[in-house]
Amino acid sequence: MGEAEKKKIIIDTDPGIDDAMAIFVALRSPEVEVIGLTTIFGNVYTTLATRNALHLLEVAERGDIPVAEGSHVTVMQGTKLRIADFVHGSDGLGNQNFPPPKGKPIDQSAAAFLVEQANLYPGKVTVVALGPLTNIALAVQMDPTFPEKIGQIVILGGAFSVNGNVNPAAEANIFGDPEAADIVFTCGADILAVGINVTHQVVLTDDDRDKLEKSEGKFARYLCKILELYFSYHSEAYSTKGVYLHDPTALLAAVNPSLLTYTTGVVRVQTSGITRGLTLLDTTKKRYGEITEWSNKPTVKVAVTVDAPAVVDLVMERLMYS
Amino acid sequence: MGEAEKKKIIIDTDPGIDDAMAIFVALRSPEVEVIGLTTIFGNVYTTLATRNALHLLEVAERGDIPVAEGSHVTVMQGTKLRIADFVHGSDGLGNQNFPPPKGKPIDQSAAAFLVEQANLYPGKVTVVALGPLTNIALAVQMDPTFPEKIGQIVILGGAFSVNGNVNPAAEANIFGDPEAADIVFTCGADILAVGINVTHQVVLTDDDRDKLEKSEGKFARYLCKILELYFSYHSEAYSTKGVYLHDPTALLAAVNPSLLTYTTGVVRVQTSGITRGLTLLDTTKKRYGEITEWSNKPTVKVAVTVDAPAVVDLVMERLMYS
Repeated sequence: MGEAEKKKIIIDTDPGIDDAMAIFVALRSPEVEVIGLTTIFGNVYTTLATRNALHLLEVAERGDIPVAEGSHVTVMQGTKLRIADFVHGSDGLGNQNFPPPKGKPIDQSAAAFLVEQANLYPGKVTVVALGPLTNIALAVQMDPTFPEKIGQIVILGGAFSVNGNVNPAAEANIFGDPEAADIVFTCGADILAVGINVTHQVVLTDDDRDKLEKSEGKFARYLCKILELYFSYHSEAYSTKGVYLHDPTALLAAVNPSLLTYTTGVVRVQTSGITRGLTLLDTTKKRYGEITEWSNKPTVKVAVTVDAPAVVDLVMERLMYS
Repeated sequence: MGEAEKKKIIIDTDPGIDDAMAIFVALRSPEVEVIGLTTIFGNVYTTLATRNALHLLEVAERGDIPVAEGSHVTVMQGTKLRIADFVHGSDGLGNQNFPPPKGKPIDQSAAAFLVEQANLYPGKVTVVALGPLTNIALAVQMDPTFPEKIGQIVILGGAFSVNGNVNPAAEANIFGDPEAADIVFTCGADILAVGINVTHQVVLTDDDRDKLEKSEGKFARYLCKILELYFSYHSEAYSTKGVYLHDPTALLAAVNPSLLTYTTGVVRVQTSGITRGLTLLDTTKKRYGEITEWSNKPTVKVAVTVDAPAVVDLVMERLMYS
């Protein structure tokens, strides 16, 4: 496959242990060309996300890929950030105390970089959004043509018809900036949302980790170190011996869409009250008597099933390749 | 079965075409003794609900059953009522222009009657709530021991993991008074909620209506007249040739609980924003890091499956009996 035919992707990321996996899988996927990373708060604060993005690219010897630092605050400024350091460690990468990266982020903001790339390659760039949707919402606000110029936005986020992982109503990435998420879901772009109703089916087991550990793969070995904390968290919070592959699943949805099936409908995000951060998909065929908040809004795709064994196999295969 | 062994039920109702069916089915069910009707706004305003409740009891020659008029306003006063006259007709009973009833409601309010009966027969009274939950919430506020003294509250309401029928988020009875619903769901009583995720499986078809029409049953013939408008609404709103048996299903859940299966968890109701009226059931096994709005609240039962053919058969059988 020639470079020209590869799908250009930008990963918007808050590394994050499963973000690191997704980034490495992307770099080992011949179907896609990673043209940049943009950073966001979520698993860590934005400053640390940028540091970790640069670090991971250096581990992969891909310091040539630009990193654009994203927003430090939600679109409605003043919202207290929720940082998931209890899942990923205070350094975001399993408390491994890695040395600082040599590289630096580019001078552009994440939103400006997203807008620039969408204009440079209209219809050709896929954004894989692995954290709160602040940068994408800012890109929409910066350039009203962004939704039509971006090829696709694959969103890791939402809990469709299932309980959330922050609380019974909300999934972490949407909860991180509900107002941004509502802007993005209703912006009119080609959107595929991959929620925890799907990613909770994709589990990397203890056995899988053993295989990674015994492999010659550089990425596999690196990840085994940082995965320990992630396994501990899952054991405590979910009583499972495996970990959910949230971010790699969303990444692979961009690489190979046939790994998932999806439905289509309007998604709105609740921004207040006890269900703040809830994603509500309208799939009903009912003709409501009244205009609703879902009426006349653009539809998006929402993943409903995933070929979980195929996703796990693909992740393993690409990480173990040395 | 002696009177003493029958389950005492109070039907809180906003008649309403399917309310009429439920009331008639109850009066023909030897397993239960209807000890009163309480009225509420919803399908009609409360005044008309009271008139219709009295009328239906007179049609059934059961003017001996007391009717207690309920609240005319939501628990948070000042909320504009949503009246579903487009479903049930401006008279609530299919625009049939029935003569006024001869009887009168008792002097007690619905809430006072509920509290009195719960205290009179502690643990023995089942409330079947077929409308917004205002009266039940007022009973809880009037007497803090009501939740433990009432036998069970069967709630027709909610849309659990499915879209609502008022809008994609909310079901009509909960939307009618979300604050009241949240009070009731968290009050600690033995509660069984039957949502539209279940009642949308229970359909009375055109053929069933033909059978009712040809029968000798007084109730069957009465209902056929008022059902026409209900069929028209379903045809327009849902493109179906049948009608949903919401209220009779909830009633039969009280008569014979084995017609349904249920799950158990905490239910909270969203009271603001675009998902106002949404019912959110926590069934996750996850241990959240933070205290949530669902933490340390009493659990309720939520219906998940229904033996729909058995419910329809039972409704038909009891209505056709002459």
